[in-house]
Amino acid sequence: MTVARELRGVTRAPWRRPSGLRSPRCRTLASAAAPAPSQAADGAWRRSLLSGKTLPTLKTDAAASITASEALLVRGGLVQKSSAGIYNFLPMGYRVLEKLERLVARHMDGVPGAERVRMAQLLPAHTWRTTGRLAADADAGQPSEKMMLRDRKNALFLLAPTHEEEVTSMLAGHTLSPRTLPKRLYQISLKFRDELRTRGGLLRSREFLMKDLYSFDVDAAAAQASYAAVMAGYEALWTALGIAPKRVAADNGEMGGTTSDEYHLLSPVGEDTLVVCPSCDHAAIATDGAAIAIDIAAPADGTAAAAAATTTTPATAASALCAQCGTPFDRAAHTHRAIEVGHLFDLGTRYSVPLGATYTDAAGRAVPAHMGSYGIGVTRLMAALLELGHAAAAAAAAAAPASATTAAPNRAYWPEAVAPYRVALAAVPAGGSGADDAVAAATRRVFEAITAAVPALAGDVLVDDRRGRRFGEKMSDLELIGVPYIVILGKRFLASGQAEVRVQKLGPGHTIVSETHHVAEADLPAYFARVLAAAP
Amino acid sequence: MTVARELRGVTRAPWRRPSGLRSPRCRTLASAAAPAPSQAADGAWRRSLLSGKTLPTLKTDAAASITASEALLVRGGLVQKSSAGIYNFLPMGYRVLEKLERLVARHMDGVPGAERVRMAQLLPAHTWRTTGRLAADADAGQPSEKMMLRDRKNALFLLAPTHEEEVTSMLAGHTLSPRTLPKRLYQISLKFRDELRTRGGLLRSREFLMKDLYSFDVDAAAAQASYAAVMAGYEALWTALGIAPKRVAADNGEMGGTTSDEYHLLSPVGEDTLVVCPSCDHAAIATDGAAIAIDIAAPADGTAAAAAATTTTPATAASALCAQCGTPFDRAAHTHRAIEVGHLFDLGTRYSVPLGATYTDAAGRAVPAHMGSYGIGVTRLMAALLELGHAAAAAAAAAAPASATTAAPNRAYWPEAVAPYRVALAAVPAGGSGADDAVAAATRRVFEAITAAVPALAGDVLVDDRRGRRFGEKMSDLELIGVPYIVILGKRFLASGQAEVRVQKLGPGHTIVSETHHVAEADLPAYFARVLAAAP
Ligand SMILES: [Zn+2]
Ligand SMILES: [Zn+2]
Repeated sequence: MTVARELRGVTRAPWRRPSGLRSPRCRTLASAAAPAPSQAADGAWRRSLLSGKTLPTLKTDAAASITASEALLVRGGLVQKSSAGIYNFLPMGYRVLEKLERLVARHMDGVPGAERVRMAQLLPAHTWRTTGRLAADADAGQPSEKMMLRDRKNALFLLAPTHEEEVTSMLAGHTLSPRTLPKRLYQISLKFRDELRTRGGLLRSREFLMKDLYSFDVDAAAAQASYAAVMAGYEALWTALGIAPKRVAADNGEMGGTTSDEYHLLSPVGEDTLVVCPSCDHAAIATDGAAIAIDIAAPADGTAAAAAATTTTPATAASALCAQCGTPFDRAAHTHRAIEVGHLFDLGTRYSVPLGATYTDAAGRAVPAHMGSYGIGVTRLMAALLELGHAAAAAAAAAAPASATTAAPNRAYWPEAVAPYRVALAAVPAGGSGADDAVAAATRRVFEAITAAVPALAGDVLVDDRRGRRFGEKMSDLELIGVPYIVILGKRFLASGQAEVRVQKLGPGHTIVSETHHVAEADLPAYFARVLAAAP
Repeated sequence: MTVARELRGVTRAPWRRPSGLRSPRCRTLASAAAPAPSQAADGAWRRSLLSGKTLPTLKTDAAASITASEALLVRGGLVQKSSAGIYNFLPMGYRVLEKLERLVARHMDGVPGAERVRMAQLLPAHTWRTTGRLAADADAGQPSEKMMLRDRKNALFLLAPTHEEEVTSMLAGHTLSPRTLPKRLYQISLKFRDELRTRGGLLRSREFLMKDLYSFDVDAAAAQASYAAVMAGYEALWTALGIAPKRVAADNGEMGGTTSDEYHLLSPVGEDTLVVCPSCDHAAIATDGAAIAIDIAAPADGTAAAAAATTTTPATAASALCAQCGTPFDRAAHTHRAIEVGHLFDLGTRYSVPLGATYTDAAGRAVPAHMGSYGIGVTRLMAALLELGHAAAAAAAAAAPASATTAAPNRAYWPEAVAPYRVALAAVPAGGSGADDAVAAATRRVFEAITAAVPALAGDVLVDDRRGRRFGEKMSDLELIGVPYIVILGKRFLASGQAEVRVQKLGPGHTIVSETHHVAEADLPAYFARVLAAAP
């Protein structure tokens, strides 16, 4: 009784809202009458208890105008807004970000010759003037996307929006030779852009985490090998995440150089527009207005059907003709919004010439390195994964109208590799304090058994040990943050020795995996060993 | 012959120096005639090869005016200056930084209830105005240590110099209760301070990496438990690094609050001054001029001798009287320069009152949380470790004058846990290409054997596969970056089957471990298994 009253007290506590801040209610923070840990209780167990964690999930529905990912991030207590377009990552959100960052790093480390670095965030303006990317008007304080400041000695700095100038200057300070090339340097670090219009939480923010890799090669042909190697790393990363972004040829724009590709995830909240051939899946960026991008786009990989576009009747604004397979199709029906999550740029010598990043060839001549630049928006990808899961869940609900209740996002569907925790053990009320004690003991037993049998799970199991919470409350919290494997330990488990395992996650091909398994307690370690073994 | 000429060509290549940048020569980058990897060569092997890595060690002596750590960082190609007080971390330097960051994180995760977060770097100025730490003159553009900018909508932001305001605002947005406290949130992130005078490379820089933890408790007594828990985490971290910083009671200064402690490493290049009792090792910060800090300092742990100072004759400026053990001593002889590497502040309600971070007590009243703030300068600690190793090596050389050649730092002595690589396999010329091939084959064999037997070594072994380099060149590069275990594989190894292992590192108690072991090839896996088992 005391417990219930105090919990209600928490929920009813006044809700302060300091200016400029969202105000999540910490309704899941109370540890009430959690079982007293024995002296021998090890740190792994204590660190797994939800009762000691910060999970300020919101009960209120998010405003309808925000995207599904923003709603899930804020309502799930993963992030909290600091200023417009600038977010703090709370513990649950930090876990996802760190997992995603490590996964990206692992795949960049897999690119032959790639080395990780960490470049400055405060960049000297003079190199940007040298490349022509910092105009005089910027110095005069004109508003732009570049965030700049002057130090106490009046020197001008940019808060890094990207690092082409910095990495090129850095390597220009080294003596390079054909034997020391290629260089493939990458980092995962913050970038800053003063977006006029921020939106969608992490989809377009002013302070965001990015993986950027820069390659330096002896010539264009060698640079193509770097380009291909990074592209292979990207493809491996997408596979590990179980996602399939569309690769499209793109315009280099302000970056300079000649060749570029982008990876886009189709999503109704995306800011770009793709036309996708219904026959061969070839995709192209839709240029503005009536222009017909897809039938003038170069084939993505130089194979097949390049000639098709030239030998058939020109397409009209309403119809398109695939540049890759030659199939004509209804343009409007195959136009999609998309979120850019990665890009590759062949920069040529756009930066190496002005900044003097040259190598010495066999004849002793200084030759500018041929460069490439390759980015993945890590925080944007985090949001895009939530958008994918939300869209897939909505599609699944639409296909099964009896259960169609998912208009508002109530659950995050992460790819298993980046969920805040892979497994949750939900100790649910079993109908009396004696039974609840038995559940608590069983929960501890299961925790010890699965983490002993599968050491890789250590640190990745969340134990919902909170007492005084109903089954539905626990499930809704664990689902909102998106734990893919929820093991229900309650009355039925005590009676049968069988745990119900609810599996819900974003599976390969942008589909929702939603399954329920009944697993005997003794089989749980082997069950999770299989789960880990199947993980990419 | 061709190889040697080309290498000379590399060394003689013109040395470009773009304005504002240091210019390391990449003299160790050439892979010359490295053995062609077989198709089955795995990624672990390829990723270990020094020939493919960026190691722009400098041959030139660093300017005499810089500190040993700056010289080692720059000459070893670990960092490269971007602007005054702002550094890029090159691959070898990034490895050290990442290892140190993970070690710090592991020990903060060991603090009960600690949760990792990531707060914004661009902080809204309004919360700093609320706490009074941003004066009106700062808005008017007066030079200060705070780096600030206005966005395109003219809103003022600080580039985070610290995060008390941000974390307090963040938690003020949550509904807290006695059951949800304590909160212990930490992050490892960049901080920015426009130091008037930067110095010593990473010892005092304008952009630096810091671990900061913030605690929120119901009252002062509970806050003391948070304070003690973080202090225990610090002590465990120092132990893992094998270092023993002096803990001193300190002044809270601008941070507000009442109690604070600092951790200092004694070093001639430090900017602080400590007086250390020669009898009991009690340390205190020497206040400016003739003030006698140590005999007025409170005992560090409240034990013993507190009364001593009051019962004996007052000390003079030239003599000191230990507040802890009562021993009188010569003040000047026991005054040392020191580098602050960590601090703990009891902040009281200095921030929670103005920013409204309150919890609701049992009576329904809003009570401000009692806060603490705890920092470790991660990049500064990295430099301080180099200073410790340099001083220890100089002391060892002074004690053995026959080998006293270490005036200029030619070797980094890292604690084993944070060296860029733990082990290097140096394939050295064996007197002919046939013998060199045999060395290359043996090197691969040793690599496979030790990484198979000790999986934790994977990724931590650097193979100096460079051909055309003399023994001395290889050793000087591997020593300059500070690899603690260098396995020499050359002519003698081929003849005897015994590898020479040179161990050089910073050991516990700020002493240099310098040993040479002769290990049979078959015993190398067991040798390194023991090394790893002994690592903290
Ligand atoms: Zn097609
Ligand atoms: Zn003493």
